[in-house]
Amino acid sequence: MKVVALAGGTGAAKFLRGLAKALDPASLTIVGNTGDDLEVWGLSISPDLDTVMYTLAGLIDESKGWGLASETFHCREAMAALGRPTFFALGDKDLATHVRRTEALRAGHPLSRVTDDLRRSLGVRSRILPMSDDRVRTRVRTPDGWLDFQEFFVRDRCEPDVVDVAYEGADRARAAPGVIETLLEADLVLICPSNPVSSVGPILAVSGVRSALVETRGRVVAVSPIIGDAPVSGPAGKMMRAKGLEVSPLGVARAYEGWLDALVVDGRDASLTSALGARDVRAIVTDIVMGSADREVALARAVLEAVS
Amino acid sequence: MKVVALAGGTGAAKFLRGLAKALDPASLTIVGNTGDDLEVWGLSISPDLDTVMYTLAGLIDESKGWGLASETFHCREAMAALGRPTFFALGDKDLATHVRRTEALRAGHPLSRVTDDLRRSLGVRSRILPMSDDRVRTRVRTPDGWLDFQEFFVRDRCEPDVVDVAYEGADRARAAPGVIETLLEADLVLICPSNPVSSVGPILAVSGVRSALVETRGRVVAVSPIIGDAPVSGPAGKMMRAKGLEVSPLGVARAYEGWLDALVVDGRDASLTSALGARDVRAIVTDIVMGSADREVALARAVLEAVS
Repeated sequence: MKVVALAGGTGAAKFLRGLAKALDPASLTIVGNTGDDLEVWGLSISPDLDTVMYTLAGLIDESKGWGLASETFHCREAMAALGRPTFFALGDKDLATHVRRTEALRAGHPLSRVTDDLRRSLGVRSRILPMSDDRVRTRVRTPDGWLDFQEFFVRDRCEPDVVDVAYEGADRARAAPGVIETLLEADLVLICPSNPVSSVGPILAVSGVRSALVETRGRVVAVSPIIGDAPVSGPAGKMMRAKGLEVSPLGVARAYEGWLDALVVDGRDASLTSALGARDVRAIVTDIVMGSADREVALARAVLEAVS
Repeated sequence: MKVVALAGGTGAAKFLRGLAKALDPASLTIVGNTGDDLEVWGLSISPDLDTVMYTLAGLIDESKGWGLASETFHCREAMAALGRPTFFALGDKDLATHVRRTEALRAGHPLSRVTDDLRRSLGVRSRILPMSDDRVRTRVRTPDGWLDFQEFFVRDRCEPDVVDVAYEGADRARAAPGVIETLLEADLVLICPSNPVSSVGPILAVSGVRSALVETRGRVVAVSPIIGDAPVSGPAGKMMRAKGLEVSPLGVARAYEGWLDALVVDGRDASLTSALGARDVRAIVTDIVMGSADREVALARAVLEAVS
């Protein structure tokens, strides 16, 4: 069975870690969000791709949900002494990834090739594709103006009100090699429990992705990042409201309408089954909170069994 | 008194540290060798400029003579895991300097400006000028072919025989802003106890530097990096022989002939006074081994007193 997963950062990474244990990891292709990529100190950073890669490699800092375990920040301290901004924390080991990525990109290699080389070096067996080799930047409009995504997310800790979200460059971005073909040929397309607006939204905004989801021969199943009226984590609530989406599994289904076959919702949202059915979306009801490695695998298995 | 010093790496840095205590450091301008600059992992490294800068900032690793004290190498270990070359050891704190330099150079700033910003950030009061903002690369010819300087120096630990040394790009390189003017207007030009071929040689090869040394109104005084028939440290012996220079203070005087007024030699070489005099070079005889911080200052004071 060929499985493709559209993925954001931390929540996606946990689900994918369970999935990579529940099936042959080599049969899994991950299409990652690059809308929250950024440049720090002249280095090219792809936070979502790295979070997924580090998690699948068993290297992630579990307590933070990003970066590498047993990390030090000596370069960052030295950068502060040189007067450079340090709000985006780059650890010393993590720096190797960014320095290498930057070197390879400057040598003319596309991000898709660089990402593939990195994940192989770290022993990740599932393929990780960036959504695009072209530059897309998620921007967040606040009452005080537009922010880069990481300014909103990290520097300002998601505190500003969100008026709008845009995917700069997405209209001109081509899907990375393999993305459209893999979507069309998949037996199962999974939308990870990620922010529908800032994590999955940029992927959907890349030309050709939405129509591949409509046309794919595989079923398309999303895991809700929302339980009741609140996101499991992160700023999805603010962002969904800014996009006119109800903050509920129903809002998630609406964000994905036109191509979503099934939505995995928490037991607490079982009552939404008929409302989802009315929208032609099958509800798969299970425990979607991934509080442990066992729960990650259990969720992945529940999803795979429900669609088998 | 305005003093300019032409400088290589470790030996120069120790002498300059003494000098910066023996006079007003703000009256001292250092012109540094950039012939052994290199790119590592896509980062622009200027080893000699950094050794001088770190030493004057009190941050150098004293036992190694390069890099920063209390350094860690976590990024380097992660780079090895990514399959990147790691023979040139970049520490985690040290990386901040190289990442910042690379970022600023790519933003279009010349090396001279970047170097000035860095040394100010680290609290170094003496001006540090690269010999040129243009690319010059010292290359070492061995019986097996040409090597980049750091391949010879670090990777191969100076073990190959040396047939020739060349300064690639020096013929087209312009002196960095301020270098020629500062040399012409100096009261005293010091040539640090550095390798005459691979440290001072590249500076002399930059167009305009030799004629500025001939024309300067100041006296030009070199400190010998050779005692007896051996260098105090490093591969100066091999390199001088490859250039047809005797490995002795007389060979140093010949490397600098045409503009050298005085050579500071060790007590053990006092017997060379008349031979140097015959070449119109005044011998300044003192203890030139800098085994302690006190000896660094004592040597600097001895030189300043001899020319006052």
